[in-house]
Amino acid sequence: MFDATTYTQRRQQLKQQLGGGLVLLLGNEEAGMNYKDNWYPFYQDSTFRYYFGLDLADLTGVIDIDRDEVILFGPEQSIDDVVWTGPLPSLASLAEQVGVHNVMPNGKIADYLAGANNLHYLPPYRPEHQLKLQAWTGKTVLEPSLPLIETIVAQRSIKSEAEIQEIEKAVTFTSRMHRSVMQFAREGMKEHEVASEAIRYAEATGNLLSFPVICTTQGQILHNHYRGNTLKANDMLLLDAGIQTAAGYAGDMTRTFPVGPTFTERQRELYQVVLDTHEAAMAALKPGMLYKDVHLLACRKLTDGLKQVGLMHGDTDEAVQAGAHTMFFQCGLGHMMGMDVHDMENLGEQYVGYTPELRKSTEFGLKSLRLGRALEPGFVLTVEPGIYIIPELIDMRRNDKVAQQFINFEMLDTYRDFGGIRIEDDLVITESGSRILGEPLPKTITEVEAIRQQAL
Amino acid sequence: MFDATTYTQRRQQLKQQLGGGLVLLLGNEEAGMNYKDNWYPFYQDSTFRYYFGLDLADLTGVIDIDRDEVILFGPEQSIDDVVWTGPLPSLASLAEQVGVHNVMPNGKIADYLAGANNLHYLPPYRPEHQLKLQAWTGKTVLEPSLPLIETIVAQRSIKSEAEIQEIEKAVTFTSRMHRSVMQFAREGMKEHEVASEAIRYAEATGNLLSFPVICTTQGQILHNHYRGNTLKANDMLLLDAGIQTAAGYAGDMTRTFPVGPTFTERQRELYQVVLDTHEAAMAALKPGMLYKDVHLLACRKLTDGLKQVGLMHGDTDEAVQAGAHTMFFQCGLGHMMGMDVHDMENLGEQYVGYTPELRKSTEFGLKSLRLGRALEPGFVLTVEPGIYIIPELIDMRRNDKVAQQFINFEMLDTYRDFGGIRIEDDLVITESGSRILGEPLPKTITEVEAIRQQAL
Repeated sequence: MFDATTYTQRRQQLKQQLGGGLVLLLGNEEAGMNYKDNWYPFYQDSTFRYYFGLDLADLTGVIDIDRDEVILFGPEQSIDDVVWTGPLPSLASLAEQVGVHNVMPNGKIADYLAGANNLHYLPPYRPEHQLKLQAWTGKTVLEPSLPLIETIVAQRSIKSEAEIQEIEKAVTFTSRMHRSVMQFAREGMKEHEVASEAIRYAEATGNLLSFPVICTTQGQILHNHYRGNTLKANDMLLLDAGIQTAAGYAGDMTRTFPVGPTFTERQRELYQVVLDTHEAAMAALKPGMLYKDVHLLACRKLTDGLKQVGLMHGDTDEAVQAGAHTMFFQCGLGHMMGMDVHDMENLGEQYVGYTPELRKSTEFGLKSLRLGRALEPGFVLTVEPGIYIIPELIDMRRNDKVAQQFINFEMLDTYRDFGGIRIEDDLVITESGSRILGEPLPKTITEVEAIRQQAL
Repeated sequence: MFDATTYTQRRQQLKQQLGGGLVLLLGNEEAGMNYKDNWYPFYQDSTFRYYFGLDLADLTGVIDIDRDEVILFGPEQSIDDVVWTGPLPSLASLAEQVGVHNVMPNGKIADYLAGANNLHYLPPYRPEHQLKLQAWTGKTVLEPSLPLIETIVAQRSIKSEAEIQEIEKAVTFTSRMHRSVMQFAREGMKEHEVASEAIRYAEATGNLLSFPVICTTQGQILHNHYRGNTLKANDMLLLDAGIQTAAGYAGDMTRTFPVGPTFTERQRELYQVVLDTHEAAMAALKPGMLYKDVHLLACRKLTDGLKQVGLMHGDTDEAVQAGAHTMFFQCGLGHMMGMDVHDMENLGEQYVGYTPELRKSTEFGLKSLRLGRALEPGFVLTVEPGIYIIPELIDMRRNDKVAQQFINFEMLDTYRDFGGIRIEDDLVITESGSRILGEPLPKTITEVEAIRQQAL
């Protein structure tokens, strides 16, 4: 947590930018797994935490710009609570920690809001938010505030020095977690055994995971949460995992490494294509550059590499324009990162990653690019190109004229069970370019094979 | 998962017992942590899983007794899904696995229900259930079905042989997880470092946790999810943790062990009181016995032990009747266990643990006893007595006449920082008594000290 002044200044900036009305920021509640009181680990709403700092359930923050009043709503502690949870600081003393001097019990929220004639709230992403907002506003159809979304996105997109330090901490934890798994994985293990090392590391260091660990020999399945496969000698393992520090900032990295001591020839070739793409994309990052253009540059670099391998042919620019590369790279190059691993995703990708002038594309490939707009110093983002061989996609496009023009299907058919490769780092945009965050983690073929050979 | 016949028979029994109407059973959805698509690990609703077996999100089961029809509602897979999640079995083939031959898309649920004139559903415990039920029934105030609750509780309370085998598996995993932590913990570690070994074990063995690990040197705080304390030489560590197997059955055990190689004299004395109570309570379990009476027997045993130590005095029966023992034992002796660690808790403790004739008490102590009713063969439950020294409670009762009659406050004041002890095992009620489930785990002072001495 930062000091009270930080939160006060953040709220002050929000007030000034928004200019009027009443801002209602919902903290999260405990979430029941299979019954109400069997709780998942608590994750606070990141916007609430950005302005009100507290990492506890059942709080609501109000910034009443018109009355120039900030209030923290929360539960009152009962004597029974002391028996079950031990003595806790009072709501008032919690509020003081984040520079708020007015507190009220949760039961008073609806009454308080009844007086507001210009209520701003964010889009609900948990059903509990929906229910609360319905109950407090008396409306069935909610109307999240676009001005509030835009103001918050503008403010949170530029990370302060203190925030960048926290993110750097999260990325270093993330990097060490990856290193630990790279040393731990062995042929014959199940994916969940390997994943357990990442999960152990997060808990052992007093952190949370910033998202569920992706730990798979089937890297071509992009959202793969299944962990039942056994690691075989010639497999690659793709680990996409990140730490969320106690202060609430996320890291997010991906590495792909051989289960054996070395990559196979085919793996090595395509790994190098992804790595070259990764380096080229990172080198292109600088203020003013559209991230969409960095993505397209990466697509061209990837296409060039695939042409060299023989899996693609034809003119690179035409291939990318026609979307031919999406046979191998179906998703976006990266996303904003901060207190959320996909920063502010619940506020809407159009607002976070694009502008009114630059709308998000609906084309396959580009529609999965979460960030498109011009970069600014203080942005923190990921760069994560990949090659994914999806048999279903090969079959789907086999008779497609455009695909035939650029894809070597005969060769590709021999890659059907190749799997997937992704390499991902986290960077901050600086005045002159960008800087990779966190402790370096093996990435070149030589480095990756060295750490595996040492481990085995 | 069991075979299709099992689920068909379970639904058949429900139909016969309930006699008529339309039963709507909601599976769970994925739950977002800090934005919608950043999911917590998936936990299925246990009742849905009991009757429909499937451990996937976004499914709804309908048992239409009047039309003699069973339908599984679910999502249809799109081409995009294949790219992101890989090919999945169709809804129809999933349904076949659990003996259901009719499937419909989720979008048709409201229409289907519109024809029902006797709709039965369970109390919502996740906000998503509330929103769905409101949308599908058109009602703001929901009316869960008491006959459905009672029928399901009656059916699920008696575990089948196959279920007991699954629970035994969960308890054995749980026991091994505890053993591993008992060997792992060291002076100077943070509680979260110790907890990481339990969490690692669950994931490494391909299981989930049945509830968030309690791993604390402050065992007197009953719902302690804080893990920031450092283990000191004379501390005891209380570990309350359980495994949920892939088949969806829970284990739940607690052990309290010294951070050093041996208990201190004071710890040893009170540990033995808890252990004697634990043994006496387990020995009393048999069909026909009220679990409430087992709880009261345990309270008397505990009081006898505390009298011997010198912390209590006076007549044991009178002390327990007056609730004096709740200075040390504030909660219930145990609870039902099955697919939920507190089995069926979302259906209501009154219905699961009590009867219309035996209402749950509102007295301090007894009001936290989740199970009171007469035991039957096939019940699976926990026995978990404890001693918890809560300084705030001492101060609260210091001037209480009844407390003064039974409590040695002068001595108790020297125990203010003692902490807490709990010992918990899982048992099944048999025709003649009960049987402890799972692989035995050190419990006597000699056994516990031996495993610690070996480890250190």
